[in-house]
Amino acid sequence: MENMSTPLANNHISVDCVVFGFDGTDLRVLLVKRSGSDDGGDYNDMKLPGSLIYRDEDLDEAAGRVLEELTGIKDLSLTQFKAFGSKDRTSNPRDVLWLERAQKEHVELIVTIAYFALVKLDKALEKTVDPAQAQWCRIDDIGPLAFDHNLIIEEARKAIRREADNNRALLFDLLPKKFTASQLRKLSEIINGKTLDVRNFHKKIAQMPYIVPLDEKQQGVSHRAARFYRFDRKAYTVMR
Amino acid sequence: MENMSTPLANNHISVDCVVFGFDGTDLRVLLVKRSGSDDGGDYNDMKLPGSLIYRDEDLDEAAGRVLEELTGIKDLSLTQFKAFGSKDRTSNPRDVLWLERAQKEHVELIVTIAYFALVKLDKALEKTVDPAQAQWCRIDDIGPLAFDHNLIIEEARKAIRREADNNRALLFDLLPKKFTASQLRKLSEIINGKTLDVRNFHKKIAQMPYIVPLDEKQQGVSHRAARFYRFDRKAYTVMR
Repeated sequence: MENMSTPLANNHISVDCVVFGFDGTDLRVLLVKRSGSDDGGDYNDMKLPGSLIYRDEDLDEAAGRVLEELTGIKDLSLTQFKAFGSKDRTSNPRDVLWLERAQKEHVELIVTIAYFALVKLDKALEKTVDPAQAQWCRIDDIGPLAFDHNLIIEEARKAIRREADNNRALLFDLLPKKFTASQLRKLSEIINGKTLDVRNFHKKIAQMPYIVPLDEKQQGVSHRAARFYRFDRKAYTVMR
Repeated sequence: MENMSTPLANNHISVDCVVFGFDGTDLRVLLVKRSGSDDGGDYNDMKLPGSLIYRDEDLDEAAGRVLEELTGIKDLSLTQFKAFGSKDRTSNPRDVLWLERAQKEHVELIVTIAYFALVKLDKALEKTVDPAQAQWCRIDDIGPLAFDHNLIIEEARKAIRREADNNRALLFDLLPKKFTASQLRKLSEIINGKTLDVRNFHKKIAQMPYIVPLDEKQQGVSHRAARFYRFDRKAYTVMR
């Protein structure tokens, strides 16, 4: 898994990356496959891309390195959002056993420093990932993960919600250049984790000077063609 | 410093607390005194209240415990805001020497999980602190601190700025029940780290339905008596 010739800082500090990808319809999380065996026999499950840090690297460097090593994805803008250090993190014996085999050392409490990234999940990015190693899972389909990784994803989701509240521009990086009100609403719903009223949402965008209606409409759709909008980054920046 | 009979988790994970206190005029930070000796002889300087974590406590618990042990202040609402793990954290040999003497063990990279709190600094709170151990320092008077603690304070200040942007109610916890526009402006300036235009600021509060002008004015002041305002928490909550 790691290049074991590089000295680890110690057995106690790791980084984990929650990479959210929006594919135009769904929010997905990048997970890596884990297999091992314990009393119950062989098992296969999933975890966040994460690992212990090396002695000579900063936390941010470690997060970038680990993500690339485990998934092939590099140069993402990763944001540190929270450290997790509950003693319950390693309450599942399977996780401790797996770690000790991987690290070839005794493992106790591990504090992990968690990072998130939010990207537009296009075909090119999907191709970067080796499906034998990693997978973009729909957020609603994620089952029980290793360690406290379900909790980390939940907290990462809160962090992107706060981030999007502070900086709406974030959302528009995930949408096509020309988008419909319905696309924007669905993305907002996904980020906020709740359904929005369609009429109120239309009223709201009409009041936002940085969401500019275009003369262009959808073509070749069976339902009533929806108008396209574009995001005016300059107008948005002036307003802030 | 610590109760050394409680087992430390390890030598690698600490917590540090940045407690900001607003005394009505200035923003202050709670620092603890450090003394030691190195090649240059005896020295006295200051640091943030912080220490290594124990094996059987969560990060949040550790932050509360360490703050109480080192300053006597307890039951503060501490918010985790960032982990610091640069290898430059322990670049000053004085800091490493001090730590190794305090911990009686070899010390390498230490990742610290930093917390902040923001409190109204009244006489009662000031009395809690033993001046031989700790001190509320005006933020503009803070000199070079141990480790990367100046950087941690800078980042904590950014964190409270973000927090105050998200939740304006935070500011009003620091002000008297009845406050003048000038008090509110000065506090906003301190939090934002920049001067605000007086006239624009007055216009701005006039537009905020949750800042309610009172019929009462200052008494016994040499300058023109200023009007008092109060914060309407209900009106604020409805708006959000």
